[in-house]
Amino acid sequence: MQQRLQQVVEWLKEHHHDLAFIHSTENVFYLTGFYTNPHERLLGLFVFQEAEPLLVCPAMEVNQAKSSGWEYEVLGYEDHENPWDLIKASLHKRNMTTASKIAVEKELLSYARAEELFNLYPSASLESAEVKLNELRVVKEAHEIDVLRQAAELADYGVQVGVEALKEGVTEMDVLAKVEYELKRKGICEMSFSTMVLFGEKSGEPHGNPGLRTLKKGDFVLFDLGVVLNGYCSDITRTVVFGEVSDKQRDIYETVRKAQQAALDASKPGVRIGDLDVIARTIITEAGYGDYFPHRLGHGLGINVHEFPSMSKANNDVLKEGMAYTIEPGIYIPEIGGVRIEDDVVITKEGAITLTNYPKELQII
Amino acid sequence: MQQRLQQVVEWLKEHHHDLAFIHSTENVFYLTGFYTNPHERLLGLFVFQEAEPLLVCPAMEVNQAKSSGWEYEVLGYEDHENPWDLIKASLHKRNMTTASKIAVEKELLSYARAEELFNLYPSASLESAEVKLNELRVVKEAHEIDVLRQAAELADYGVQVGVEALKEGVTEMDVLAKVEYELKRKGICEMSFSTMVLFGEKSGEPHGNPGLRTLKKGDFVLFDLGVVLNGYCSDITRTVVFGEVSDKQRDIYETVRKAQQAALDASKPGVRIGDLDVIARTIITEAGYGDYFPHRLGHGLGINVHEFPSMSKANNDVLKEGMAYTIEPGIYIPEIGGVRIEDDVVITKEGAITLTNYPKELQII
Repeated sequence: MQQRLQQVVEWLKEHHHDLAFIHSTENVFYLTGFYTNPHERLLGLFVFQEAEPLLVCPAMEVNQAKSSGWEYEVLGYEDHENPWDLIKASLHKRNMTTASKIAVEKELLSYARAEELFNLYPSASLESAEVKLNELRVVKEAHEIDVLRQAAELADYGVQVGVEALKEGVTEMDVLAKVEYELKRKGICEMSFSTMVLFGEKSGEPHGNPGLRTLKKGDFVLFDLGVVLNGYCSDITRTVVFGEVSDKQRDIYETVRKAQQAALDASKPGVRIGDLDVIARTIITEAGYGDYFPHRLGHGLGINVHEFPSMSKANNDVLKEGMAYTIEPGIYIPEIGGVRIEDDVVITKEGAITLTNYPKELQII
Repeated sequence: MQQRLQQVVEWLKEHHHDLAFIHSTENVFYLTGFYTNPHERLLGLFVFQEAEPLLVCPAMEVNQAKSSGWEYEVLGYEDHENPWDLIKASLHKRNMTTASKIAVEKELLSYARAEELFNLYPSASLESAEVKLNELRVVKEAHEIDVLRQAAELADYGVQVGVEALKEGVTEMDVLAKVEYELKRKGICEMSFSTMVLFGEKSGEPHGNPGLRTLKKGDFVLFDLGVVLNGYCSDITRTVVFGEVSDKQRDIYETVRKAQQAALDASKPGVRIGDLDVIARTIITEAGYGDYFPHRLGHGLGINVHEFPSMSKANNDVLKEGMAYTIEPGIYIPEIGGVRIEDDVVITKEGAITLTNYPKELQII
C-alpha cells in the first residue's frame, strides 16, 4: 500500500499538483487497504507532496479503517457534523492553506464536492487523478491476479450450479437464487453486478432482467455473473441450450465461440487493444450477424467490474503484461434469443491466460 | 410521468434555468419511467423550457426506453461513439445553442460531465436540480406507497426466513444466503443494499460484514436487509437472541425498543424532523448508552434506499404527509454486540404507519 501511495506522491511532485483528493471506494481501497462504501456520506483521502496523508470517514468506521492497516491520521465525523468544516481545520493545522492544482477523480467526484474543494482552495484548478490511478491499477500485481483467479473460479462454480439447476418449468429467478445461494454459502457477500439468468427470447436482450419466465425445450439459457472477493471482481458469461438445439442456434453459438476464441488467441503484449474487437467483430459480421453485436468486446476487470482498459475498437492503447480484462462477444436476435461467451483473462509474456475456465463447447442440457 | 416532467419544466421557467440535465438512474426513472443502470456509460435526460425533452442512452437500451413508455426523442449511441458529439449535433438542430443556467444533480454529476456541459455551454453556470427533484420525490404518491408497502412486506418475509434458519453452528453467510434465496424465488432481482446477518460481538459493528462466524448460544443476531421492487426500496432491521439472554442484553434490547417506539409515536405531520432523533437519543442516553448510538435515527426511503429526508437531529424541516423514512436507533457495545430495530414508515394525516411489521418483542430463538 505504502508503495502505491508513494507513487502518487511522486506523480504529484512531477506534475506540480499540490495535493490529491481521492474519494471513491475503489481508489481509497487501492491506496489504503480500507474497503468501505459510505453511501452518501463522505469518504476522502488527502495525499500531499510532503505531509502525511489524511483519511476522512464516518466516525463509526474509524476503527475499521485502522484495523485495515491504515497508519496515518484518520479524521472521523459524526452524522450531525459537516466533515468539510473539520477538514478545513485539519488542513489549517497542517499549514495546507493554499493550493493551485488539486488532483481529483474527475469521472467520479461530484460537482457538489468539487464546490467544497473550491471553498477550501478558491483559486485551485482540478486536474485528473484518474490518469495516474488508472495507470497504476490497469497493470495488476501478482497478489491481485491471485485474487482475480480465485474470484473467477467462484464464477465458474456459479455457472456450474446454474446449469445443474436447469429443468423444465423452472423460472429464471429460481435458477438465479440457487446460484447466489451456493456462492453465499462459500462466503461471498456481494456479487459484482446483478446476476443474469435469461431464458429463450429474453437472452436476446443484452441487458435483460431475469424474472419469472419458465424454462422450455429449445431455449437458450444465458448466465452472466461474477463475485466480489476481497475487493476484486469476476465476470463470466456462458450460454447453453435446453433440451434441443436448432441449426440456427448452433450457427449463432459457434460463430460467437469462434469470435471469442480468435480475440483470446490474438491477446498478447504489444497488440493494439482495439484490434481485438475488430478481430471478433469481423468473424461475426462475415457470418452475417454484424448487426446483432451491439456492444464492445469487453472491459477491464479488477477492483471495479468495469475498469480500464476498455476493449472497444476505438482503443489505440496496447496490451501490457498484467492487464486483466473480459472478452465477451455476443449475438442477440429478437425472438430467437442471444448467445454471449465471456472469459476473464490476464496478459502474460506469452499471451492471455483465462481465469474463468468453465467449458465453452456447446452444451445441450 | 408527464406530470412530473411538467413540474420540472415549470420550475425551470420560474427560476430562469434554460434547461436541466438529469443523469442519475433514479431521477431518470422518476421522470421517464425507464429504469436502467448504464454503469460508466452515459444516461442523460435533457429537459427544456419549451422544446420536447431528449433522452440519451446506449444504443442497445433504446428499445427498453421506448417500451418503458418514453414517448419523446431517444438518442442512442454506440460504444465507439462519443455521445457528447451526438448531443451537440442534436442540440444544434433544436437551436438550443446558448444557455446561461443549467440545472443538474450537483451531488451526483461528475466533474468530468460538468466539463462536458461547459464545452456545450461555455458561459453557463450549474445550478442544483436536487432542490426540485427532492421536493418532488420526498412526498410519495399513493402508487409509490403501494410499492413501498409491498417491498416492506418482502423485507418482513426476509427476516422471517432468516430467523427460521437459525440453529447452533450455522454461519452468518448460510443464513444470509437462505434469506436471499427465498426472496429471489419470489422474483426479487436486487437487494436494496448488501444484506447483513451478524452474530454475537459482530453485531456490535454498525457496518459489520457477514462472514463465516458460527452461531452460539447467547448471541445477538442482527438482520438488516431490504429489497428493490419495481424501482423502490425497503429496509428493515430486527435483532433476536439465540438460546439464552443475559440481563444486560435484555436491558439493551428494551432500551432500543423504547427509543424506536417513542420516535414512531412522535411521527406526525408538522413535527420537526430532528426532534425524532432527539427523542430516541434521549431515551438511549438516559439509560446510559448514549456513547453507543453513533448514527442518526434514520433516512428517507424511496427509489433510493437512502434519500431525503435525513432523520438527523440537525434537520429543521418538518414532517409532511406522504414522507417515507426509516426509524432505526441502535446500541452497539464492543464484545457484547449490538441491537438495532428499524421500521419503514410513511406519514399520514393521523401519524406514522409502519410498512414493515415483523414483531418487535424480544425473541429468544
